[in-house]
Amino acid sequence: MPAWWCAARPTTTCSLAMSDLFRIGVLGRGTVGAAFVEMVHAQSQKVQHITGMKPEIVGVLSRESTEGDFDRILAASDLIVELIGGIEPARTYVLKALAAGKHVVSANKQLISLHGEELYRAADDGNVQLRFEGAVAGAVPVVRVVNESLAGARITRVHGIVNGTTNYILSEMAARGLTFAEALSDAQRLGYAEADPSDDVDGRDAAAKMAIIARLAFGVAVSLDQVSYEGIREITPYDLAYAREFGLSLKLIGAADLREDGLAIWVHPVFLYAGHPLASVGGSFNAITVESPDFTEITMSGPGAGGPQTATAVLGDVISAMIPPASTFSTPAPVAICADTTAAFYLHLEVADEPGVLATVAKLLAGHQVSVKSVLQRGTSDQAHLVMIVHPVLESQFYAALEEIAQLHVLRAPPRAIRVIEEEFQ
Amino acid sequence: MPAWWCAARPTTTCSLAMSDLFRIGVLGRGTVGAAFVEMVHAQSQKVQHITGMKPEIVGVLSRESTEGDFDRILAASDLIVELIGGIEPARTYVLKALAAGKHVVSANKQLISLHGEELYRAADDGNVQLRFEGAVAGAVPVVRVVNESLAGARITRVHGIVNGTTNYILSEMAARGLTFAEALSDAQRLGYAEADPSDDVDGRDAAAKMAIIARLAFGVAVSLDQVSYEGIREITPYDLAYAREFGLSLKLIGAADLREDGLAIWVHPVFLYAGHPLASVGGSFNAITVESPDFTEITMSGPGAGGPQTATAVLGDVISAMIPPASTFSTPAPVAICADTTAAFYLHLEVADEPGVLATVAKLLAGHQVSVKSVLQRGTSDQAHLVMIVHPVLESQFYAALEEIAQLHVLRAPPRAIRVIEEEFQ
Repeated sequence: MPAWWCAARPTTTCSLAMSDLFRIGVLGRGTVGAAFVEMVHAQSQKVQHITGMKPEIVGVLSRESTEGDFDRILAASDLIVELIGGIEPARTYVLKALAAGKHVVSANKQLISLHGEELYRAADDGNVQLRFEGAVAGAVPVVRVVNESLAGARITRVHGIVNGTTNYILSEMAARGLTFAEALSDAQRLGYAEADPSDDVDGRDAAAKMAIIARLAFGVAVSLDQVSYEGIREITPYDLAYAREFGLSLKLIGAADLREDGLAIWVHPVFLYAGHPLASVGGSFNAITVESPDFTEITMSGPGAGGPQTATAVLGDVISAMIPPASTFSTPAPVAICADTTAAFYLHLEVADEPGVLATVAKLLAGHQVSVKSVLQRGTSDQAHLVMIVHPVLESQFYAALEEIAQLHVLRAPPRAIRVIEEEFQ
Repeated sequence: MPAWWCAARPTTTCSLAMSDLFRIGVLGRGTVGAAFVEMVHAQSQKVQHITGMKPEIVGVLSRESTEGDFDRILAASDLIVELIGGIEPARTYVLKALAAGKHVVSANKQLISLHGEELYRAADDGNVQLRFEGAVAGAVPVVRVVNESLAGARITRVHGIVNGTTNYILSEMAARGLTFAEALSDAQRLGYAEADPSDDVDGRDAAAKMAIIARLAFGVAVSLDQVSYEGIREITPYDLAYAREFGLSLKLIGAADLREDGLAIWVHPVFLYAGHPLASVGGSFNAITVESPDFTEITMSGPGAGGPQTATAVLGDVISAMIPPASTFSTPAPVAICADTTAAFYLHLEVADEPGVLATVAKLLAGHQVSVKSVLQRGTSDQAHLVMIVHPVLESQFYAALEEIAQLHVLRAPPRAIRVIEEEFQ
């Protein structure tokens, strides 16, 4: 009879010593929590085979639990898995666990992106591990690869699609000509978007993930509020249809880009030319590319969210913590965060069909060093759609031009601007 | 003045204690060895920042060195990096190092795939780490992701392109209509293929990598000689041109596939339909997909070889070993290795242009339960090309039919058969 059998049958005479048990306390009883508990039971034998210890769930904290319940679970655990989400009480629980010398595995992107430095210090002080693969891209192992496999490499840029909900919505809008509202409603019905989708569709979820990735890739302390982000609520099917005439498709892209003047970290809807590797990432998948002069680029892709997917990442972290210490967090290096970056743009103007409009717009752009690459003008009764792609330019200059354009009396609707990636990010 | 500065200036008064140094002995002075030594010097400060120790190269063993040189390097090292390649003397050196309680990082796929179990045991006995990310796919972190990130997951299949030389040759043959010999000669001139390309083009290099991956993914002891493999020497531009009419492109695919009857591990030239994710992997890139019912699939891709690429993987392993112990190797589980597997095939026959040939071939195939999916017949003067795709079938049955077809008097050339991947491997 294998050793792991004993603990599952507590009344059986058991030769399993306490030291052969690894006791896990789980905070949160949601989709990921349920999947994780199920996975630990299903994979108990494999985990014991790898680590020499039998994993045991000693308690699961739910919304109905009290503070006393948490303390009891903490006292009985070797490791705490935090799957509550949000800042409080998650932050307090994680800090208490680390201070008590317990390893913590978390899938909480808000917490890590806003309070990472405090938590890293607490883990160092407690001489325990803090792992959070599940906080970034589900089962896609971005954290471990950036933090461990590529620890010795010079990373220059990390970019990709790190939010599955918006990628699903944009894929459906492009494929079926749906409006944002229609595609969101479909996504909610199918479980790809939450009842309150704001964090996803406003880009805040992706921004939190990029803050975490940038911290690991560049060793610089990045907080969520230093990431410039924008969502996809304003995207219309007309934008997507017009852009298709230029061979472009739209993705919500997150990037952390080490430039001469510092680190640019942002999340924006961006058009990609068809040949770009991220252009073909469809549905709710995530994909992240890491670039370096040492190895050119490495890309990882897969489903970025979901109960079993995130539980897979959490269990991988738990197993690593059972064979400690596998990792550490270095203190941040002094790297500047860029406020102004360079980008190419798609610009869509609805204008009165009058002579000289194109000349006026072109002159305004040129006055701010914005250079036009392609133009498409199409008339509809008394007005025209003027769509252009402009060459890479400092964002501050582009937006200064845009502000003046918005004041033109010929404009029939506010101007719409979306970043474009050509072969290379700019 | 930072601590790392001292050792770079040995004449300066130095407060760096011996315990703050991490001493690395390098075996092999080839492309990867040179890139690794350079990378350690360039990244010394970063490594010290992460690990708290300054990495120092204490010696580099070359072809001209003697046995005594190895012993001196070993005695002076905390960790040995083995980049010699081949079996001996690499095996003896690695075993000596592990027995002496030194960690070993190796990029030697032949050694790990043929003597892995012996080396894993030696590492366990010496209570040290043996890491070999660089042995599989250059900087693409297959070993760490499979062995650590996905340690708790149920993996059902790993497949992909694990040899960059053959992928480059096949890409050039397809794009430019070159023969194998022409594309190989180009690849050699550009440094993508070695002077003796046999290990790559005969599939042996890919087979060694699949043996290593299968060992990690399925915890089963796999030796190179248990992997069925076949290379690309026999592929003609005619095959590629005909197959293109079916929307197929050719890749040298390696797979480790957990089936009801055991584990199938193979390397074969395989046609993929255009929509397959691996079909678009061009040039010398590698790409590996890991499948699981828990997370569907995760794909990693990037440059699979090259000095700095492999050195990146080696340095990532060295850093992990500096923060021990990050990993372990479980003892193998008893899983059968499949001898006979199922596949769809492309079959190309050059036949006399006589009545009844198609009927004869179809009847022979049917007699072995081989079912035809698509047929293309094209006459050229007195003979015809008969090209077909058959549905998935046991390989033993397909080859039995092929043997009978090869005896037909209407055949003008030996029959050519290549596996086909449809949506799913079979």
